Amino acid sequence: VKSYNITLLPGDGIGPEVISVAKNVLNLAGSLEGIEFKFKEMPMGGAALDLTGVPLPEETLTTAKQSDAVLLGAIGGYKWDKNEKHLKPETGLLQLREGLKVFANLRPASVLPQLVDASTLKKEVAEGVDLMVVRELTGGIYFGKPRGFGTNENGEEIGFNTDVYAAYEIDRIARIAFETARKRSGKLCSVDKANVLEASMFWRERVIAIASEYPDVELTHMYVDNAAMQLVRNPKQFDTIVTNNIFGDILSDEASMITGSIGMLPSASLGESGPGLFEPIHGSAPDIAGQDKANPLATILSAAMLLKYGLGEVQAAERIELAVLDTLNRGFRTGDIYSVGNKLVGCKEMGEQVLKSV
Amino acid sequence: VKSYNITLLPGDGIGPEVISVAKNVLNLAGSLEGIEFKFKEMPMGGAALDLTGVPLPEETLTTAKQSDAVLLGAIGGYKWDKNEKHLKPETGLLQLREGLKVFANLRPASVLPQLVDASTLKKEVAEGVDLMVVRELTGGIYFGKPRGFGTNENGEEIGFNTDVYAAYEIDRIARIAFETARKRSGKLCSVDKANVLEASMFWRERVIAIASEYPDVELTHMYVDNAAMQLVRNPKQFDTIVTNNIFGDILSDEASMITGSIGMLPSASLGESGPGLFEPIHGSAPDIAGQDKANPLATILSAAMLLKYGLGEVQAAERIELAVLDTLNRGFRTGDIYSVGNKLVGCKEMGEQVLKSV
Ligand SMILES: CC(C)[C@H](C(=O)O)[C@@H](O)C(=O)O
Ligand SMILES: CC(C)[C@H](C(=O)O)[C@@H](O)C(=O)O
Repeated sequence: VKSYNITLLPGDGIGPEVISVAKNVLNLAGSLEGIEFKFKEMPMGGAALDLTGVPLPEETLTTAKQSDAVLLGAIGGYKWDKNEKHLKPETGLLQLREGLKVFANLRPASVLPQLVDASTLKKEVAEGVDLMVVRELTGGIYFGKPRGFGTNENGEEIGFNTDVYAAYEIDRIARIAFETARKRSGKLCSVDKANVLEASMFWRERVIAIASEYPDVELTHMYVDNAAMQLVRNPKQFDTIVTNNIFGDILSDEASMITGSIGMLPSASLGESGPGLFEPIHGSAPDIAGQDKANPLATILSAAMLLKYGLGEVQAAERIELAVLDTLNRGFRTGDIYSVGNKLVGCKEMGEQVLKSV
Repeated sequence: VKSYNITLLPGDGIGPEVISVAKNVLNLAGSLEGIEFKFKEMPMGGAALDLTGVPLPEETLTTAKQSDAVLLGAIGGYKWDKNEKHLKPETGLLQLREGLKVFANLRPASVLPQLVDASTLKKEVAEGVDLMVVRELTGGIYFGKPRGFGTNENGEEIGFNTDVYAAYEIDRIARIAFETARKRSGKLCSVDKANVLEASMFWRERVIAIASEYPDVELTHMYVDNAAMQLVRNPKQFDTIVTNNIFGDILSDEASMITGSIGMLPSASLGESGPGLFEPIHGSAPDIAGQDKANPLATILSAAMLLKYGLGEVQAAERIELAVLDTLNRGFRTGDIYSVGNKLVGCKEMGEQVLKSV
């Protein structure tokens, strides 16, 4: 039997519930494919703050780095919202991304035929949407320096950040995006604000330079404000989108909501080498935490991405993906994706049903 | 008779067509209210580049500054897309905003009952949407320094921008937003990314400080990624939104597309004193330029905002707003908002019909 070390970071809110379900699914799918997992659960986010005083304890980062892949639930909650920056759960997540050097964040957003009604968009606009946002994750305004508070030349108080990209940072995310587009429909749209920002002009210049390595991929460019519109007007025009950290944050969330089922959407964050980080794109949903109401499918599908992109275990990954589809076909729905005629279940029961289909 | 000097900046693409129609509407509405306009047409954007070599000639800016209000059509086009930064039509627009010191950009997005089908959102989600985005327009990453291209400490090429806000810049846009919310439903949502960016933390701190002057307005805060989602999920939850320059660029375009009729949406940009700048939020649409297909209603409604916010001529403004509604009620539609059962007209004919209703 092959064996992998997986770091589990349940985090806050509904995180522990969905991670516990996804762990069972990983175990079963693995055992059916001759794969064994050794799980190590570590504190992170608000949970880590309460336990250790910091949002990403050193031991958590070390364990994550030494493992083969990392599966994260969700972090954050009202309780820590007013914390100073270095004591915010979100800061722990940024430190984790930086520490694991996972610069490429893949966020698929597709509308399953079974769930097309969940979208707030008209059926003819939503059906068939199947896009992938490739977001740069360890650069740009999230990490750029100088940053902070101070005074300007007139002595006025200011708050400031730096949006900065080096050529190598753009080149490597562009390559991931071109590779991704090549495996999909061969269409890549790079989103920037090159009519105003130098950081974006440089982004566009480098993406065009890298494009020469991928003559089979059709590259287009779009301004971020237009992209935010086009996602609402006609999301089907997009296949693969590549963009910087902050625009990717905004557009991937918008795209996910267009599917109407953000409780279904996984993500993968990958580096050059070392373990990848896999997490549902939804948040910690503190208002329904501990009530067995969460939809575990996004985390289960993140586990499938972990198998496929993190470990190269494509068969086990597809086993899970098919099991999720089969469970939906059998009519099981958590509250967030429920529609009349289906069977309303909680988080645990949804997990049991997926296990039956694995 | 009262008399006002209006600078007209037709600009590029469909700009001249929609400005010419809006001018006629202004003239008629004015004369019925005892107001006379003296128009001065000046080059701007790509048109100015072709004529004078710069996107905002000094004479255009001077004329604009000396007038009582400025009405702009649209700028930009493929022809100038590859120009260097200082020779882009967009740079002229940014110089105009900076030159007129119009820091407050008001962008209403509402779904008219007559046009609810134009939205890609389901009817029950779109109908009744009526929100106002108050965007900071002369600060933040659009204007922050340092900016440019260079090399980092490792000798790698970089492109960079600075997102920076001073207290006074946030305070004055916050006051405009609170005033706006007070006149509407009394609900203000401030959008930022205060879980990651210092510029946003400072933004939130100042907005909260100014809130004490407006105890009757209910203030909430939302992260920009969540706002991009919530606009799709349930746009009716919003009344007035206030946000920075770049987030406002993205969210106001997204909001406008949610109405499905961006050919209908006006905007106003205001400073502490001096003339305001009024423009439709749509672009120059080079692909339909000169074909008499453009929807002039956004520019006509921008003229109404000019009367109301720029000149305080509320009655003339309402005359125009009612005329637009009446024209829609009589079934006239340009191509972008056409639906079966209505009368398809071009730009000029739409203008004639509005004149009949003024
Ligand atoms: C929690 C927050 C720091 C994070 C981000 O902005 O990257 C989240 O919104 C995301 O998209 O994963
Ligand atoms: C043309 C461009 C510079 C401009 C902006 O980004 O402000 C436009 O998108 C707008 O929103 O008015």
